[in-house]
Parts: sequence; C-alpha cells; structure tokens
Amino acid sequence: MAKSAITPARAEDYPEWYQQVVRAADLAENSDVRGCMVIKPWGYAIWENIQRRLDAMFKATGHENAYFPLFIPMSFLEKEAQHVEGFAKECAVVTHHRLEPDPEGGLRPAPSARLEEPLIVRPTSETIIGATFARWVQSHRDLPILINQWANVVRWELRTRMFLRTAEFLWQEGHTVHATQEEAEAETRQMLDVYAEFAENFMAMPVIKGEKTSGERFPGAVATYSIEAMMQDRKALQAGTSHFLGQNFSRAQEIKFQNEAGELAYAWTTSWGVSTRLVGGLIMTHADDDGMVLPPRLAPAHAVILPIYRNDEERGAVLPYCQQLKRDLEAQRYDGEPLRVRLDDRDLRGGDKKWQWVKRGVPLRIEVGPRDIAADQPCIVRRDTGEKLPPLPRAQFLAHAGAILEDMQESLFRRAAAAREEATVAIGSWPEFEAFFTPANPDKPEIHGGLAYCHFVESAEMDARLKELKVSVRCMPLDADDEPGVCLFTGRPAARRGVFAKAY
Amino acid sequence: MAKSAITPARAEDYPEWYQQVVRAADLAENSDVRGCMVIKPWGYAIWENIQRRLDAMFKATGHENAYFPLFIPMSFLEKEAQHVEGFAKECAVVTHHRLEPDPEGGLRPAPSARLEEPLIVRPTSETIIGATFARWVQSHRDLPILINQWANVVRWELRTRMFLRTAEFLWQEGHTVHATQEEAEAETRQMLDVYAEFAENFMAMPVIKGEKTSGERFPGAVATYSIEAMMQDRKALQAGTSHFLGQNFSRAQEIKFQNEAGELAYAWTTSWGVSTRLVGGLIMTHADDDGMVLPPRLAPAHAVILPIYRNDEERGAVLPYCQQLKRDLEAQRYDGEPLRVRLDDRDLRGGDKKWQWVKRGVPLRIEVGPRDIAADQPCIVRRDTGEKLPPLPRAQFLAHAGAILEDMQESLFRRAAAAREEATVAIGSWPEFEAFFTPANPDKPEIHGGLAYCHFVESAEMDARLKELKVSVRCMPLDADDEPGVCLFTGRPAARRGVFAKAY
Repeated sequence: MAKSAITPARAEDYPEWYQQVVRAADLAENSDVRGCMVIKPWGYAIWENIQRRLDAMFKATGHENAYFPLFIPMSFLEKEAQHVEGFAKECAVVTHHRLEPDPEGGLRPAPSARLEEPLIVRPTSETIIGATFARWVQSHRDLPILINQWANVVRWELRTRMFLRTAEFLWQEGHTVHATQEEAEAETRQMLDVYAEFAENFMAMPVIKGEKTSGERFPGAVATYSIEAMMQDRKALQAGTSHFLGQNFSRAQEIKFQNEAGELAYAWTTSWGVSTRLVGGLIMTHADDDGMVLPPRLAPAHAVILPIYRNDEERGAVLPYCQQLKRDLEAQRYDGEPLRVRLDDRDLRGGDKKWQWVKRGVPLRIEVGPRDIAADQPCIVRRDTGEKLPPLPRAQFLAHAGAILEDMQESLFRRAAAAREEATVAIGSWPEFEAFFTPANPDKPEIHGGLAYCHFVESAEMDARLKELKVSVRCMPLDADDEPGVCLFTGRPAARRGVFAKAY
Repeated sequence: MAKSAITPARAEDYPEWYQQVVRAADLAENSDVRGCMVIKPWGYAIWENIQRRLDAMFKATGHENAYFPLFIPMSFLEKEAQHVEGFAKECAVVTHHRLEPDPEGGLRPAPSARLEEPLIVRPTSETIIGATFARWVQSHRDLPILINQWANVVRWELRTRMFLRTAEFLWQEGHTVHATQEEAEAETRQMLDVYAEFAENFMAMPVIKGEKTSGERFPGAVATYSIEAMMQDRKALQAGTSHFLGQNFSRAQEIKFQNEAGELAYAWTTSWGVSTRLVGGLIMTHADDDGMVLPPRLAPAHAVILPIYRNDEERGAVLPYCQQLKRDLEAQRYDGEPLRVRLDDRDLRGGDKKWQWVKRGVPLRIEVGPRDIAADQPCIVRRDTGEKLPPLPRAQFLAHAGAILEDMQESLFRRAAAAREEATVAIGSWPEFEAFFTPANPDKPEIHGGLAYCHFVESAEMDARLKELKVSVRCMPLDADDEPGVCLFTGRPAARRGVFAKAY
C-alpha cells in the first residue's frame, strides 16, 4: 500500500493526525501567545467562505450586522447570577491603560494608570449588548431587534487545540429581542435550522439538532439547542448553539418595553453562535490520510491547474494553454458563482507541487503537459476519491465542471452520513453502554465508540457514571421518533432518548 | 429659509453638528465602555461596503487575508526602539486571566491568576505579525509575502469622538515582506494609490497623496505616506497611511532570508491601513444640515420607497405597486451590482418616516401615492440636492436609475473638490499664514482656514509656531508641480512645499 502524505494516519494516532493536517494543509499555526493561533491565508479563506454564506443566510432571515465593544465592565458580569458562574472565570482581565519604562529595565504596567473598574475581554457579549438593547427598546414598535455581530472573543482555556478550542477565536453571535415568548422561541429554533442547513448543505457535515440537558445549558439560558456532528474518530463535535434566554437577561439588564396594552413588560431574548471551530469540524469530517479534503462549496479554490513541462520550449506551449483553460473554467459557474481556479506556475518540483495541493484539499487537480495538450484532454483528478477522471475532451470537461463539483459535494455528505450511521447504535443496558465506550487498549489512541441513543433521566448517578467513561449527553434530538422507556443509569421511567458520545 | 433637520447647523457649531449627524443618521452611539462606540446597523452596513470594495482591491493586487492574535506579549513591544516610544504607552494591558468572588462582594481579578508577562491588546500588529513572518520566511522563494488582516485594535485615547478617534476601532492592516528595497517601496506606493483610488472613486472624497515629515512618521518607519482629505470645516483628515519600514522591523524581529546569491539577508517590510475613521470622513465630506448624504457606491440602500395612503383601500392599491417597483428596481444594476432598495411600510407618520431616510442619507427617495400611480410617475427626490426629479414615467425612471446614481456619485465628488479648491491657497509669508489660520472670533466655533501650500524646512522653530496655531504639516504632496523657495518659518532655502492645515 502506498505511504500516505500525513504521518501518523488517522487509525494510528487521531489527535496527532489532526495537528499534522492543520499544518500540512497550511490552515493555521500556534502563535507566540499562549493558546492563540495564527490563521494562515488558506485557513482564513475557508473561514471567509463560511462567513459569506452564513451572513447571507442571516440577512435573508431579517438580521442586520452591528458592532459592540470588545471590553465588558466587570460589574456587567456580576448582574446575571448563572452567567457570572459560567463566564466570569477564565477570562482576560484588563487592569491598566498604560505602560511605562520599568526602573529595572524594559516596560511595566504603569501603577498610576490602574483602571478603577477592570475590563474583561468579551468571552461572549450578552451583557454588553443587553445594556445597549435596554436603551434601544422602549415600545413594542421597536421589536423585534434582530442583530448579528462578527467578532473575536477570548476564553482563557487551559488545554487548547487549533480551531477546536483556542483562547481567542473568531465567531458570530446573534442577539435578538422579542415581545413574546413564542416569537423568541421561534427565533431560537429558526437559527438552529439555519445552522443545520449550513452544516449539511455547505460543510457536507450531517448534524443532529437537539436540546441540551439542564447541565449543559448556556449559563443564564432557559433552553439551549445545538447541532452535533460525528467526527471520523466517532467523537461528537458541538458545531453551533442557539439559546432561548427567556427573560433572564432582560431582567438583569432592564430590557423593558411598553406593550400594546400600554403596560411595561420585560422582553424575551435569544442568542446564537458558531465559530472558527467549524473549520475543525470540516477537517475532522472530511480530511484523510493525505491531508485536507474540502467540500467544493467552501473551497477557496475549486480547481488548481498544474502545468507540466521539461524545458522552456514545452513551457512556451503549456503555459498559454493553462492560462486559457483557467479563463474558460472561470467563465463556468458552480453554486451560483464563477468557478474559483488557481494556476500554480511556481518553479518547484512537480511532485512537491502536486502534493501541496493534495494536502490543501483542492477538489479538482488539473495536470496539463504536452501530451494532454496534443489530445486536448487535460488530466483531472478528484481529491475526494483520489481518482483520475476518465479521459474527457476539454470542451466536455468545461461543460461538466460544475456538475462534477456538485457530485463531489454530495458524495462527501453521503460518505460522512454513512460513517455516522455505521457508528450509531441504540443501547438499552449499562454493560452494553460501558463496552461501547471502552477502548480495547486504553493506553493506545484508538478510534472507538460512536453515537448511542439511550433512555435517560438526568441524575447525579448518571453524571458520575458518564464522567468515569468520559461520555456526555450530547443532546435530546428534536426530530427523533421517540418512545418512553427505562433510564439506563437509574432504572427510572424515561420519557425519551438522548444521544450519548465522547466529545470535543 | 426652511429649518434644517440637524441642530445646530454646520456653520453654527461644526463639532456638535457632527455628533448630531452621527446620532440622527443612526450610525453609532457611545457605549458603556469609556471611549468605545457601538456601531449601529446603518453605520456598520456602510463599513461592510467599504470592506467589501477595499478587500476586492487588495485581492486584485495579490494580497491574501489572514488572522493574527489580539494580544501582544509586552516584551515584543520592547524590541523596536522607536515603536516602543510610539505605541507602548496608552494601551490596554491584560494582567490577569481569571476573576474570582471578592470577599468584599462582587468579583475581582484573582491574585493567583496574575500573568507572568502582561499582554497588550494590539494597538497595531507589526510586532506580532513580524514574529510570525520570521518563521515563514527562509528563502527568497518565500517572498514576497502579501498579507492583510481585518481586525479590531485598541489605543487608549484620552479625547474620543465617534469614528474619528475611539479607544477601540475596526481597521485593516496590510503587512508585506520583500526581498529588495525597491519592491518594498513600490508596494508602499501601490497601496497609497489603492487608498487614493478608493477614497476618490467610492467615497467621492478628493485626497492629496503625500509623504509625511520625519516628525509625523509611524514609529519605526523609514517613510510614511498618507492620503489627506479636507473636511467641510476646512480641517484636514488623514484618511489612510502606508509605511515603508525599511529593515527596521526585520532586524528587530529577525526576518531573514537566503537571497539568490545564497547569502543571509534582512528582508524589507511595509504596512498600511485604513479604519472606521473613513466613516467619519464620509460624514464630514458629504453630510449637510439635514443629516447624512451617502455616495451611492457605499450606500447600504440606493433607494427607499415610501408608500403614501390615507386608508386601507388606498393601501391596497399603493402597496402592490410599490412592491413591484422594488422588484423592478432591484433588477436594474449600478456599479456592477443589483440596485439595493428598501420599501418602508412601517406604521409611522409620513413626515417622520421621510425625515428618517433624509437624515440617514439614502440617495433616492421615492414617494408613491394614488396620484403617482394614476400617472405611473413615482415622485423621486435626490438626497444630494434635495431636488425632486422632473416627472418621469416609471419605465424611463427604471432605465435611468443607474445613470442617476452615477450622476450623484460624480456630482458629490465635484462638490467636494470645488470646496477644497476654494479653501486651498499658496502662502509665502508668515503674517499671511497666521491670518489664514486665525479665526475671527476664537471663542466661537467657526469654519476657517483650509489647505495652505508653503515652502518649509523642518525645524524646531517651525514646530513651535505651528503648535501655537494648532496647525500641522499634513504631507509633502507627491504629484505637485513644485519649485524651490524660501522657508516661511526660518527664511532658509526650501526644496519643496508642504500642505499645512488644522487637522483631526
């Protein structure tokens, strides 16, 4: 068997494979600041595509973008009791507003420039945005308020992993205010649907929509919903969340309005977000032992053209053909946009160049040498299967390029859905549950487990058993055909099943 | 004369007029965090258009976006001597990574979670990006590196004014690395040209391209170039800067590469940026005593349709006509994109609604009542002149909508250019200079001065005199037909003229 481009392979050491893909695909690297990453141009271009598509979906559902301060006064975090528990812990605290020369050399925070009230670098913006909304909302005519913000946030995580959990990350946070509970609940579910649609149609990543248990709720929320995806190591990834905040934040922040009856009422709020973690989800859903595999809809380039020549004379014939091919491909459309095509004419060994693009995950690799030109049949390789397409005259390839990309997009989704189905079980007993989540050899990283649908009732007993196995309830699925049963952990009657998994 | 929508008018109190326009046009508001603003949806949509257009120009000149950490280790700021002087002063300093309950109530930064090395919230990213580039650059084959970042930055300003000078602001910062001085200098000038082209073609804001004097250089730069615009109060606004950094930062950060001769050499770097300050420039270039006036190319909406009716029956006839008009307008194109049209059917008094859109600066206001429908001639008002267009059948209006917008775009530029020309003088003597920049009544805000082209030599004497008048050298224009002369301040021979002005 041919050696793969990424060492170790997924089956050998999945966590290390992940880091190596991030590196080999030029997506990101660790920075000089603890827990913060540098998102490199190829990784950032994927995020830009995610942003552009999601942003259009937010706007199509009536939301507008705005921007709120990076800093949150410490006192704001003290207002909502559960929120303070959840967020006012590991965060970046600004205490001074000036540096000065240190008598012992170098610089120091100037003691004379200590802030009266420390500022927190936003870990999420419910409190500062809520304080603003309190000014914006007077009457029911001002509602609903439907706002989204694209921003950076900071949570001082102890263990970090690029894209999946970093101290600083990029995200969007939606914040809305409504006159009624019904409207706020409908908004919460609508945005969950938007996330699920985006994950499945653009990321080619199948997800389960569900509600979180009380123990996994966003601090201060009445209900938290999430989309959960299964990665190739059979762990779950929470890929997006949508929170119904009830009146908790509006009471803490005095978001009140005069309703149609002329009475003063507290408003109902929601918040929802996805982050650069989605890039981690893309990698762990589609990448293989040769590196990244990009779903065409989010790929920074749909195709790369690699000219092949041995001397200047051949170069003189090959390059113009490649340039024309690039223009012709760019005149084609896929997914409502012109094809994105790169021509890589760098002076590098052909093999190195080819493998760089394989590792970066470009959907179509087009190699053009003198013989391909003579036959007017460029050699085309699909990244998802690694297969060379059957010989196809140039004109036919051009006409079908969009269809080929769409086929890849769908096939990536089917492959991920099949992998998930294969690792999804319904479990009715504790021993079976324990066996499902126990690796054969606990000392060696190994792919095991999956998604287990089980009846349960929240209890301390369950929490203790789950903790031991490092398993958690991912969610209570919304669209499952469910029936009552018996809790796996306590034997008590249970109204429904939850999805259990190890998770990121 | 009719009363204007903004009080005070420009001529009465220009600074206060500015604040009132920001408020009346729903662009931004002060936040609960000192010096930080909330950018409201209408203001943010203008920024999104600025971003989208500039981003395309950056990409067309070969740049890629990436993202670097928000935080900079304090020691990084100590490396470049001039840079530390310029930037390691008023900044936000993170000293702790956790909050804990304060025994006296509330929260406090946890004494046990003090950072070993304080982190600075980036005031600009030369140092942290330079440290990354040092890893990326090994050989001349890795060059040039052409990177841009869209980000938030923080400078702890004492006196803030929305958009013009805020503690946190949004911007883009380009950072590039080159093998030769010539390439880096060409990049610096290319990006200055990109900024000038954007300012003039999209913002309809005429600018002077020039080099800054040594006293006004970016800390650590070898040469700083800027685009300077004149606002309606005749003060200058520095609207964008492009820096040739020589080898100063590459030496401080060890950005070295093996050149074609196989020798290790320091690289040549540049940086360049524009910020949300551009929104302030838009306001002060075009807004009038009725509020914002938006150049069509950057307007979140090109046109707003206001249905006019007195009862439900009229509403039943007017609304469908307006909806169809909206669809028809959206099928038209301006500046390579579909027209952006809003239909405002809110239940508000017609006058209030109209004035909201006037104050927000939408280029075309289209009022449609039963009589307009009977004639099939919507009533169309241009925001820039306040004039109603001559009666125009609907089909003709549709066919000319794009041309009308383009006429407005060009006419806004011409108006601004004429105002600048009127306030631009060449001055050859100190008394004349002093008179030009001295208001008749220093106690009353008043519009005076302008741009003075004068021969000069940098000197302490000049600095002292300028400080007294609150005037500065804005730049040494690049494209001026210049001749030698005599320095206005010292009588010494001077090789060229500078542009002098009061400034933001």
